Amino acid sequence: MDQNGSSSSNTNTMRSHCIEINDNEEFEVHKVEAPPQKSTLLKLKARLKETFFPDDPLRQFKGQPLPKKLILGAQYFFPILQWGPSYSFKLLKSDIVSGLTIASLAIPQGISYAKLASLPPIVGLYSSFVPPLVYAVLGSSRDVAVGPVSIASLVMGSMLREEVSPTGDSLLFLQLALTSTFFAGIFQASLGILRLGFIIDFLSKAILIGFMAGAAIIVALQQLKSLLGITHFTQQMAIVPVMSSVFHNVDEWSWQTIVMGFCFLVLLLLARHVSIRNPKLFWVSAGAPLVSVIISTVLVFAIKGQKHGISVIGKLEEGLNPPSLNMLRFQGSHLVLVIKTGIMTGILSLTEGIAVGRTFATLKNYRVDGNKEMMAIGFMNVVGSVTSCYVTTGSFSRSAVNHNAGAKTAVSNVVMSVTVMVTLLFLMPLFHYTPNLILGAIIVSAVVGLIDISAAYNIWKIDKYDFITTLAAFFGVIFISVQTGLAIAVGLAIFKILLQVTRPKTVMLGNMPGTDIYRDLHHYKEATRVPGFLILSIEAPINFANINYLNERISRWIEEFEEEDNIKQRQSSLRFVILEMSAVTAIDTSGVSFFKDMKTAMEKKGVAFVLVNPLAEVIDKLEKADKVNDFIRENNLYLTVGEAVTALSLEVKDQQSSMQDVPL
Amino acid sequence: MDQNGSSSSNTNTMRSHCIEINDNEEFEVHKVEAPPQKSTLLKLKARLKETFFPDDPLRQFKGQPLPKKLILGAQYFFPILQWGPSYSFKLLKSDIVSGLTIASLAIPQGISYAKLASLPPIVGLYSSFVPPLVYAVLGSSRDVAVGPVSIASLVMGSMLREEVSPTGDSLLFLQLALTSTFFAGIFQASLGILRLGFIIDFLSKAILIGFMAGAAIIVALQQLKSLLGITHFTQQMAIVPVMSSVFHNVDEWSWQTIVMGFCFLVLLLLARHVSIRNPKLFWVSAGAPLVSVIISTVLVFAIKGQKHGISVIGKLEEGLNPPSLNMLRFQGSHLVLVIKTGIMTGILSLTEGIAVGRTFATLKNYRVDGNKEMMAIGFMNVVGSVTSCYVTTGSFSRSAVNHNAGAKTAVSNVVMSVTVMVTLLFLMPLFHYTPNLILGAIIVSAVVGLIDISAAYNIWKIDKYDFITTLAAFFGVIFISVQTGLAIAVGLAIFKILLQVTRPKTVMLGNMPGTDIYRDLHHYKEATRVPGFLILSIEAPINFANINYLNERISRWIEEFEEEDNIKQRQSSLRFVILEMSAVTAIDTSGVSFFKDMKTAMEKKGVAFVLVNPLAEVIDKLEKADKVNDFIRENNLYLTVGEAVTALSLEVKDQQSSMQDVPL
Repeated sequence: MDQNGSSSSNTNTMRSHCIEINDNEEFEVHKVEAPPQKSTLLKLKARLKETFFPDDPLRQFKGQPLPKKLILGAQYFFPILQWGPSYSFKLLKSDIVSGLTIASLAIPQGISYAKLASLPPIVGLYSSFVPPLVYAVLGSSRDVAVGPVSIASLVMGSMLREEVSPTGDSLLFLQLALTSTFFAGIFQASLGILRLGFIIDFLSKAILIGFMAGAAIIVALQQLKSLLGITHFTQQMAIVPVMSSVFHNVDEWSWQTIVMGFCFLVLLLLARHVSIRNPKLFWVSAGAPLVSVIISTVLVFAIKGQKHGISVIGKLEEGLNPPSLNMLRFQGSHLVLVIKTGIMTGILSLTEGIAVGRTFATLKNYRVDGNKEMMAIGFMNVVGSVTSCYVTTGSFSRSAVNHNAGAKTAVSNVVMSVTVMVTLLFLMPLFHYTPNLILGAIIVSAVVGLIDISAAYNIWKIDKYDFITTLAAFFGVIFISVQTGLAIAVGLAIFKILLQVTRPKTVMLGNMPGTDIYRDLHHYKEATRVPGFLILSIEAPINFANINYLNERISRWIEEFEEEDNIKQRQSSLRFVILEMSAVTAIDTSGVSFFKDMKTAMEKKGVAFVLVNPLAEVIDKLEKADKVNDFIRENNLYLTVGEAVTALSLEVKDQQSSMQDVPL
Repeated sequence: MDQNGSSSSNTNTMRSHCIEINDNEEFEVHKVEAPPQKSTLLKLKARLKETFFPDDPLRQFKGQPLPKKLILGAQYFFPILQWGPSYSFKLLKSDIVSGLTIASLAIPQGISYAKLASLPPIVGLYSSFVPPLVYAVLGSSRDVAVGPVSIASLVMGSMLREEVSPTGDSLLFLQLALTSTFFAGIFQASLGILRLGFIIDFLSKAILIGFMAGAAIIVALQQLKSLLGITHFTQQMAIVPVMSSVFHNVDEWSWQTIVMGFCFLVLLLLARHVSIRNPKLFWVSAGAPLVSVIISTVLVFAIKGQKHGISVIGKLEEGLNPPSLNMLRFQGSHLVLVIKTGIMTGILSLTEGIAVGRTFATLKNYRVDGNKEMMAIGFMNVVGSVTSCYVTTGSFSRSAVNHNAGAKTAVSNVVMSVTVMVTLLFLMPLFHYTPNLILGAIIVSAVVGLIDISAAYNIWKIDKYDFITTLAAFFGVIFISVQTGLAIAVGLAIFKILLQVTRPKTVMLGNMPGTDIYRDLHHYKEATRVPGFLILSIEAPINFANINYLNERISRWIEEFEEEDNIKQRQSSLRFVILEMSAVTAIDTSGVSFFKDMKTAMEKKGVAFVLVNPLAEVIDKLEKADKVNDFIRENNLYLTVGEAVTALSLEVKDQQSSMQDVPL
């Protein structure tokens, strides 16, 4: 309210006038006011603040002394300073349990997802070591478990394979993956810094549900390579080439691989099922992958599986992440691809990370600042790209396990990271005989959770158009490609918004008997029309995209009104067209000319044209166009429909009675 | 209203209940109703009708006998059948005068615009012969004068020159121009038939003003070639290459051409000025081009101008349009370019034609059906493309002359067409010595009228963002290209719509003293806050693009409310958050989950969450999500803010008094 203080000069002007009704009763009409004057600069400032700083992040700094401001500033950028000082042994105990639990999941998943991205398995472990440490310092969520995720891995792999073969030139492929990760991080951090985070809002939940289900199927089908033991497999992702690749290489199928693979897959799915049924048994599904890896490795070693056609991971280097600044390639022919891949995986991993953070924050009733999270995730990926990590984010499945295992702070990420470090330093040789089929089974059992049929059914029930975007994303991903599927779905979602603006609803209002409330005649049955009045409510901003439509639609309302009258009484009784403007939240120059045209057209028809409750911005614009358009000066603005109808009816009566008074 | 008849079963349920106030007064609360049930199919049908048939074109056919229906149908497709039968000699006289006037303008402009498109001058005359005849039969405007126009000519020429040189392979160039015209016509007619005409609405007036001013400057600069007598001129359109081409060829400047050219240019501009000052003298500017052509031709012939470096048109073929079906090329390497050019010139010429038609229809108070006009213009261009005409439409400048000269019906187009025919048959040799400089001067004097500075100033005054789109179109056209300039401007306009949806306004409402009206506190100074209530109005549909923003913004409203309370009384008094939903015109599945989250968050705070006047669609969706979300069943829906505040305040009082009654 303090914003208005500057222009209180017109407070004393008359705000309402009274109309005398026959028997000395008075009826008060409230004046529609122009909003307080503000300069263009002030308005721009207010608008920019609402657009980019809706959460007003600087509010907490206001009125604080400088040292306090510095502390608050440091805490803003490093949330660890907020919770760190009050960290206790009790919290540590919880965090160790949850950290070890997610580590047991992160190690096999890290190796698997790296393979999904066509990267060396060890890169997946590197990516589960450094990024969680960075996130622990910068991130503001307490539950998110950081590491590689299936969808970003899938997309990075499939996009880079378009230009470079991971088997043909594996070094170049790795370099491009790291450079993409760098760009993903820069892009994510920029979104946060420039406060453009709303861009990821355009991946609506409806789209994501379709997209994730499609991606899950694509990912699962890719695993047929290791689950069936096929050696010559297509590089493409879409369902048609993959299926044809599967059935054109039937001779390569290895029954030993198939039997072993599907046994473990069934086991993993069963474990998942148990944990879903009883969330307290979360450790069943959390531990199952590691247990499967151990059992299968021992089994393959014991039966000398390679000799029976079971392929294994092979030798893995020991040691921590090597620095990889020299691996980033900022020139050359693949730069465009790398930037595109960076942006695409950046958006997708950001969407997942932010959604995970928000979900658990709502559950535990604390707040996650979207823009801050974007900076944290972005910075984490930039650091990752120079320490041999590929793109990482908060993982849905591991964060859920983390939460169920009782994680209290980001220290659980540190515990996981240390566990991975120990693995990298000492345990790598143990993975030599781990069969590839188990990685495939782990991926399939993980992505099955991305298919959410009941959510899709809910969307169908509530909003058919949303369901179309879900389907578009799903089928686009399955049959064309991940990027195209997403682009089509987002395009459809934006088209819907544009359509709502291009074809706004106009609704005829009627009086609720015994009140001065006016509501939609088609919605409220008891609402009745007021003779002589056509009361329309326009339900959208009026702008270039809809003025022609509104013109045509309102003409039709008037024609229909007159036709009905003609049937009843052979002449039109229409005297007033009232536009209820409460839902017209903005107009532009085309909107202003719309009102000018409407007024001219109504005057030609001999019908009075009245506006009810135009909002501040609308009044402002109409006033500026005043020379063209006398809305503000004339007596055709009312604050409520009720007052407009009463006042105008009284006017008519007055005229009629004065006409009767005139001696003929 | 008849649509609702089917589901009147719930009419008898209670629609309001009464709350007893202390001293036996009663206060009536109106129930928010669910809208009448409609099947998905019915809703889809209604939605499609509103989207594609807002003018309900079939209404006039309803209830008519079959023969009448056939006649009405024929009249719908051939408006000539509407006005033809009542055509009179008096109308003919007016039409002959105006037809001859626009012919005197159309002949020199036709030749000039064809040169602008790098086509043989005679194609411009062909295009002023056939299309006007077609339009006279199909068009529904009485004032539009049809023929080639400057902007579409400019765009067609510049786009085709990207791939083919008009001097190097003039036959191919002509073939591509005719094929583009064919595609333009098909595209225009499809927009009309598919009722997608709203696509051209996205070229808002603000964009067109910037675009036309930019195009006028580009076109005028192109004429420096003929006005300065330069022979080696750039093929590019943007301002930088053109100006460098002008000043790098100073040695080619011909002073005879310059003197003569600028004399005629001044004359033409003077004539234009006279007609603008006094619209009755419209014939001065209408006749000036033809007079200039005649005088300059005679002059050049007399002084043997060619020998003094003045270039002339040269020999022109006599005879009417040859058929050109065999010239259309539907295969080959230029097909993509041709389709792109067709769509681009199609949109631009359609925009001009429809705007011209609408402008004069409003002026004379008759109606032009946009979709029908699109079909007419489209069909006209398809016919044109097989009769050696390039793209044509209703011209702004010639239609204004037509109107001023007193045109009554499309017969003036026929008169013009016949005049052009006579010219084509007998007068072509007379143009042999017409100097090219006069064509340049005619074009410059015509496009000067496209620069509308006062309109641009008006846009600046009313809406700053609109003005940015104007500037974007203007500078984009001047410095980059016609297509890019338009694309940037349209992109900005769409971005604004998306921004309005992504960042909707939330407004805090207060009570207007002495009434039960609630309005924006920042707008109406006398509105006062109701203690314990936070009343917010949300001014946009709630969907995927804004739920995160709304969540953050509403949290901030609540925090600010609590902070203010803390300062005053050390504890928060917030008991009710009321969302006024009159301007929330739609929600989607994300919107539904927004309400779920809001409700959970409010419950955790111990604050009641109340909705006021949700519209039919919103209630419908919330009801469908009922299992998740008990809004509809619970007692937290009110029809007006006033009723909500009264009822909730009474509830609080009741609780307090009953608490006092309890013996402690």
